[in-house]
Amino acid sequence: MAFDVSIITLYPEAFPGLLDVSILGRARRDGLWSLDVTDLREFGLGKHRQVDESPAGGGAGLVLRPDVAASAIDSLQQKGRPILYLSPRGQPFDQAMAAEFSAGLGLICFCGRFEGLDERVIQKRNMIEVSLGDFILAGGEAAAQAVIESTLRLLPGVAGNEASIEDESFSNGLLEYPQYTLPRTWEDEPTPDVLLSGDHKKVAEWRLNRSKLLTEARRPDLWAAYLNGQRIRASETDDEHD
Amino acid sequence: MAFDVSIITLYPEAFPGLLDVSILGRARRDGLWSLDVTDLREFGLGKHRQVDESPAGGGAGLVLRPDVAASAIDSLQQKGRPILYLSPRGQPFDQAMAAEFSAGLGLICFCGRFEGLDERVIQKRNMIEVSLGDFILAGGEAAAQAVIESTLRLLPGVAGNEASIEDESFSNGLLEYPQYTLPRTWEDEPTPDVLLSGDHKKVAEWRLNRSKLLTEARRPDLWAAYLNGQRIRASETDDEHD
Repeated sequence: MAFDVSIITLYPEAFPGLLDVSILGRARRDGLWSLDVTDLREFGLGKHRQVDESPAGGGAGLVLRPDVAASAIDSLQQKGRPILYLSPRGQPFDQAMAAEFSAGLGLICFCGRFEGLDERVIQKRNMIEVSLGDFILAGGEAAAQAVIESTLRLLPGVAGNEASIEDESFSNGLLEYPQYTLPRTWEDEPTPDVLLSGDHKKVAEWRLNRSKLLTEARRPDLWAAYLNGQRIRASETDDEHD
Repeated sequence: MAFDVSIITLYPEAFPGLLDVSILGRARRDGLWSLDVTDLREFGLGKHRQVDESPAGGGAGLVLRPDVAASAIDSLQQKGRPILYLSPRGQPFDQAMAAEFSAGLGLICFCGRFEGLDERVIQKRNMIEVSLGDFILAGGEAAAQAVIESTLRLLPGVAGNEASIEDESFSNGLLEYPQYTLPRTWEDEPTPDVLLSGDHKKVAEWRLNRSKLLTEARRPDLWAAYLNGQRIRASETDDEHD
């Protein structure tokens, strides 16, 4: 059964865009996932198909009307899929959320523009506010693409190489180790000897060590969480020995 | 003088994509920024234009060669622009970084694929590793789009309404307050009275209060940083009174 992705946007011409290249494009042609794009403008009011109005209480910009947004949402078969509203006010998207979404039946992504969406439709339609990070985009489309891409590549059969998914950043709570490939020496920089040694144990140790150093240096937040996880695992092992 | 964006990618057909719609498309047609896209494949080796090889030390997937990546980078005029490598190992992208980039001359974005890029070219070309967040994409393209979009909309004249930029999430360290618009009552939910009162001071107080409540509930990390900033400002004010 395909994973069904629906996108509601004022810019339907921007899709599938990036979702049509490489492994995601192939997976869609293979029927592993489906995409439908709904033009929010079609649900706009009057002959100008108006979708927005000034914010109640004043202020700059325009806010998307709740009735228009609800009409677009209600035109879709929800089929147990979460309705995401991409917004910097939401819960920050991460790999755990991608894994959770990929275990479901699909996604409905509502892409906002302007000053945002009327709060009432977010509440009444149980929309899940998801943030791509602490920065502002011109609209939700780029965020939707990233959330969808990250989710889709976890579907069975999409990435092609399940091993490489297990090896990458965040799967063990650490940033990924540095990679090297041919040529062996490039601009006077040799590939580290250990990687050419053929000693798998030493290679694994070196990589884990470099992952730890990198995470500690660049991401004190992840590093603290990793150390905490190690402590919990160690105390669980102690309990087993008791 | 235009803000010059260069993208190096294996999927040049994915651009301009989202960067061509709405305010960004208009700004490009108005000459506020320029885009050029370099196909990494053109710098590949041999008749198959190979860009990748197996990782030194073994493991799943393929790693982009440093010589191929460097040829593509060196084919561009750098013109004082930072060279970004979009990677989950990088510094998390945020609004402060967008502001810093937007104050520069442009961006060069290198979009990786597969298991990543040989570490040596990242070092030798002083590439800045930037992460969109703690999740994995199939490639750097979606991340590049988001970073570029977020940066471009801060250029003078692009967003059109400078006031709305000052009002949004993160500009004061808080998530944005909920928005309401017409109709006044929708599905039995009225617009909050205060927003219809015409009392600008009360509206501003209500919005700030809702921003605080929302930030405290959803983002303890931002809330702690906000409180800390308030304390620092308060103690600076005290100093001025001494």
